[in-house]
Amino acid sequence: MSFSDHIRACNNYNRARVVPFFADERRIGWLRRDNAAALARFRRVFAVERDRVHLVARGDVDAVSAAVDEVVEALVLENRLPKWRNETFDVAPRWGERPLFRVDRGAVAFFGVRAYGVDLNGYRRDRGEVQLWVGRRAPDKRLAPNKLDNLVAGGIGNGYGVAATLAKEADEEAGIPASLIERAVPVGAITYLMENEIGIRDGVLFVYDLELPADFVPRNRDGEVVDFRLMPARSVIQRIRATDDFKFDVNLVFLDFALRHGLLDIDDPEYLDVASGLHRPFD
Amino acid sequence: MSFSDHIRACNNYNRARVVPFFADERRIGWLRRDNAAALARFRRVFAVERDRVHLVARGDVDAVSAAVDEVVEALVLENRLPKWRNETFDVAPRWGERPLFRVDRGAVAFFGVRAYGVDLNGYRRDRGEVQLWVGRRAPDKRLAPNKLDNLVAGGIGNGYGVAATLAKEADEEAGIPASLIERAVPVGAITYLMENEIGIRDGVLFVYDLELPADFVPRNRDGEVVDFRLMPARSVIQRIRATDDFKFDVNLVFLDFALRHGLLDIDDPEYLDVASGLHRPFD
Repeated sequence: MSFSDHIRACNNYNRARVVPFFADERRIGWLRRDNAAALARFRRVFAVERDRVHLVARGDVDAVSAAVDEVVEALVLENRLPKWRNETFDVAPRWGERPLFRVDRGAVAFFGVRAYGVDLNGYRRDRGEVQLWVGRRAPDKRLAPNKLDNLVAGGIGNGYGVAATLAKEADEEAGIPASLIERAVPVGAITYLMENEIGIRDGVLFVYDLELPADFVPRNRDGEVVDFRLMPARSVIQRIRATDDFKFDVNLVFLDFALRHGLLDIDDPEYLDVASGLHRPFD
Repeated sequence: MSFSDHIRACNNYNRARVVPFFADERRIGWLRRDNAAALARFRRVFAVERDRVHLVARGDVDAVSAAVDEVVEALVLENRLPKWRNETFDVAPRWGERPLFRVDRGAVAFFGVRAYGVDLNGYRRDRGEVQLWVGRRAPDKRLAPNKLDNLVAGGIGNGYGVAATLAKEADEEAGIPASLIERAVPVGAITYLMENEIGIRDGVLFVYDLELPADFVPRNRDGEVVDFRLMPARSVIQRIRATDDFKFDVNLVFLDFALRHGLLDIDDPEYLDVASGLHRPFD
């Protein structure tokens, strides 16, 4: 196990296994070839060609979303997709642009549309040493059950902005009050492109750092985290190097934290793999 | 002008215009096709094939370096290369590996071998506002004369490590004493791949942050910088967005600084272009 193994795992996307998914001549997703084939019979919604798929459903966001939902429902019924999450993500060619439609969170990777999330590093300094708050995911989470996770992390649902998602998740997941989360500093984004069981995860994580007071103790309120522990940041990094204990993309978020805070030794043989591997450029 | 324009300018590399340069079946550089053709007659040093070039000179580092130097001398004489810089860079397939040979700094981009440098953000906080020390490059610099630059920046010459290069350049370029530069924090690396007049610049900049005391004033000692000024970091970023006043890759270094220090607005339409554009993955 190495840092690079985690970076590679999050970037195992293989261009040969996918076709681009277009809307109005702009790419909005990546469809694995088997997923593209499964869309061929929904001719009023998708036009499946040999090397690309087009969205052909027309109308406003509600109309297109309804057309896509019918397809998602059919795919759920034939077990190509997990059950509905009943939480929708906006789909647009670019962050900040007007969405073309909304899609259920469970189908995001099927269509390979970009999935946006927030991730909060909650840390404190004890006698010069940086400590990180680390959570453990509940055993009944669909994705990465029991894995170690960041203090706060969550997907950006339809209609929510970045800061609003952070505040909501910080409250639900870790009991961080509004007065404290306001001090969180946006420090960039992690980007990766990963094939998973469902399709392609085009992941973008907006990353925040929050220095927490010594008397703050996180309390989970939504049942998604079973416990929190405070760990020396250097121990977190050693454990990332040696194990698969952390959720796949959380490895990358903590490596970014270590890099930015000078906790990674510049003579580490993997220093440049980490520095160059956490921000896959958009195509 | 936009942030993305600067990122694109540093990543204008076009795979179709180059061929890989191999040593023992490992790629060590990218040769523009006209440069590859110019090497064809040096058969004891290079084997030029249609879609790749191999290093065939054999021997220890000194022997291979001498063979490459003869080629460089011939290319300088026919004005394919600028005059000798008399400063050599190590060439290896990967940072930290044993070098295969040394090459004059002026020929690094001709062969498209990776060029490593250090870059120091020197900043201070005045009443909550972050200020950056910005230098102006001398008018007689070959590369980017008169452009605005970071407080300290320099290439990593043969035999120098990262920290040693930083200390040396910090002393020569800005008069930063050893006792101060020791506090500099390594915070990652910028990576880019750029075609320039000579060939391909495969740039890697190890980035450091150094918070400077209010009474520190930089003094240049090597004639490479004509003046230094303290600028609010937000003004630096606005000027990067609006102008071409900064050296090409320094735009990227300051954008990275702004991102890591929370100085870039998360709602900036270019936020994700910046977050995903400063660290081109190694191939």
